[in-house]
Amino acid sequence: MSSGSDLKTLFERKKELIDEYLRETLCKKKIPDILAQSIAYSLLDGGKRVRPGLCAITAESLGIKPSRVLPLAAAIEMVHTASLIHDDLPCMDNDDYRRGKLTNHKVYGEAMAVLAGDSLLAFAFEISLNELPKQGFSQSHILRALSILSNAIGPSGICGGQALDITQEYGEDNEEFLWKMSELKTATLLRASLTAPAALVGVDEQTMSCLHNYGTHMGISFQIVDDILDVTGTISELGKTPGKDEASGKVTFVSFYGLQKAKELALNETKKAVEAITPLGEKFKVFVEIVEHFTRRSR
Amino acid sequence: MSSGSDLKTLFERKKELIDEYLRETLCKKKIPDILAQSIAYSLLDGGKRVRPGLCAITAESLGIKPSRVLPLAAAIEMVHTASLIHDDLPCMDNDDYRRGKLTNHKVYGEAMAVLAGDSLLAFAFEISLNELPKQGFSQSHILRALSILSNAIGPSGICGGQALDITQEYGEDNEEFLWKMSELKTATLLRASLTAPAALVGVDEQTMSCLHNYGTHMGISFQIVDDILDVTGTISELGKTPGKDEASGKVTFVSFYGLQKAKELALNETKKAVEAITPLGEKFKVFVEIVEHFTRRSR
Repeated sequence: MSSGSDLKTLFERKKELIDEYLRETLCKKKIPDILAQSIAYSLLDGGKRVRPGLCAITAESLGIKPSRVLPLAAAIEMVHTASLIHDDLPCMDNDDYRRGKLTNHKVYGEAMAVLAGDSLLAFAFEISLNELPKQGFSQSHILRALSILSNAIGPSGICGGQALDITQEYGEDNEEFLWKMSELKTATLLRASLTAPAALVGVDEQTMSCLHNYGTHMGISFQIVDDILDVTGTISELGKTPGKDEASGKVTFVSFYGLQKAKELALNETKKAVEAITPLGEKFKVFVEIVEHFTRRSR
Repeated sequence: MSSGSDLKTLFERKKELIDEYLRETLCKKKIPDILAQSIAYSLLDGGKRVRPGLCAITAESLGIKPSRVLPLAAAIEMVHTASLIHDDLPCMDNDDYRRGKLTNHKVYGEAMAVLAGDSLLAFAFEISLNELPKQGFSQSHILRALSILSNAIGPSGICGGQALDITQEYGEDNEEFLWKMSELKTATLLRASLTAPAALVGVDEQTMSCLHNYGTHMGISFQIVDDILDVTGTISELGKTPGKDEASGKVTFVSFYGLQKAKELALNETKKAVEAITPLGEKFKVFVEIVEHFTRRSR
């Protein structure tokens, strides 16, 4: 692995595997028509598959065939998609566009969007609970991996982060609030995309700790870059409406620190992520490129 | 067990255990303030705890201390509460009252209601995955129990049923639609309240099959009685607005069959439930009373 294009190829190969698996999984499941359409619209829509890609690449770095962790990777993408569908609702961020097309509720209505999100949250666990044991992972490792996933969703994860984001209840300390919200809203699930497959494989605590720290800094850096792109990006680059954060008066890394300082912070978090993963040696070197690639991204 | 009041006492004792456990569980969890309040408002609100009660009573009938299945019982109640919060949303059933007080979104707003529901779905798995292993259940049994629970929530469970209910997409056969919707929307989670703890304990397939069939018929009967109460009940009895189904023109057992026939069907499903549980003998006799009690209920 030596260039951005190699990295792109690596993610694209994983994306193919994941897209295929998601499609098959959805096909096999008996779901009332209109709900199935609403779920498929958002789940099979050509997302970048960053999180399940990280999951598959983590498995590979740990010497496990990516195909074996596909149920977990799919579950992570289902959870991510559920959170996007609900975040886009009129009562939340009220977004009309996502991934370059109309948001779920604009097409299927709000009720079906709520149900599609709920369904995906439940389906994520169903598919993992049913399929991971068939891949020969130990049951205790499966329980731990899913505990990490559930924690990343719930009140201490993306739901908690989104609650902070929409209420902007930052008390007396804006700065602390901003970092906490970003960790919950963004870093927990990105981090779980590494730590959950690591738990599934049964890594030692030291490896887990390196991945955990890497995931936190990489996730925060990811959010800072998101905030930057919200200011500097275009709708065709982002696939969603830019300038929303600024318009809504929400505290972001850019609004709080200014654009220049936000860029520095993103680089600093990237550096910390690199430092965290370095002890894991050659096999995890790809994660250095990954976090650097995320930091340079334009969408 | 010989009278309705004994049964009431049995459920009330379980309710105390469950309420206490839910309260403790929520207290221990670090959750952003406003989200914690929204969750607590709906979760700790004096619901009847029918589903977790069934879970605890099933465990007891199988010779297991109810306290050991509390994480599962709590998870089932969290899932049920999540579904109520989301069902009440303006974009869904648009209900202002639930369990005798304002619905979650009327107090905390729609966004927080969506997040409270999502949080509870994730938290249900988190608490089960973390706490059930400590109760000494085998890991494979835990995986199976949670698979049953996840299936009861998702597109083949309450989400699928609610999707049918709101779209009323019954195709050519109203009658088949009505039964299918009721099974998904209501029976799957009530049934899982018996089959999930049974899986946790590791019962044989014959016992599982009896509980499964009992749960299905009991669940359908429960829904028929719900439809009847929607017509005959008052707001103070029900704790929610009656007459909603009729006003919305939805197909229900009452609108489709008429009140008299609906009552007969409820009794018939009750009878089938009793037949299904009878092979399990004396220890499950309480479930005969339970389904009969449900059929006679006025709220």
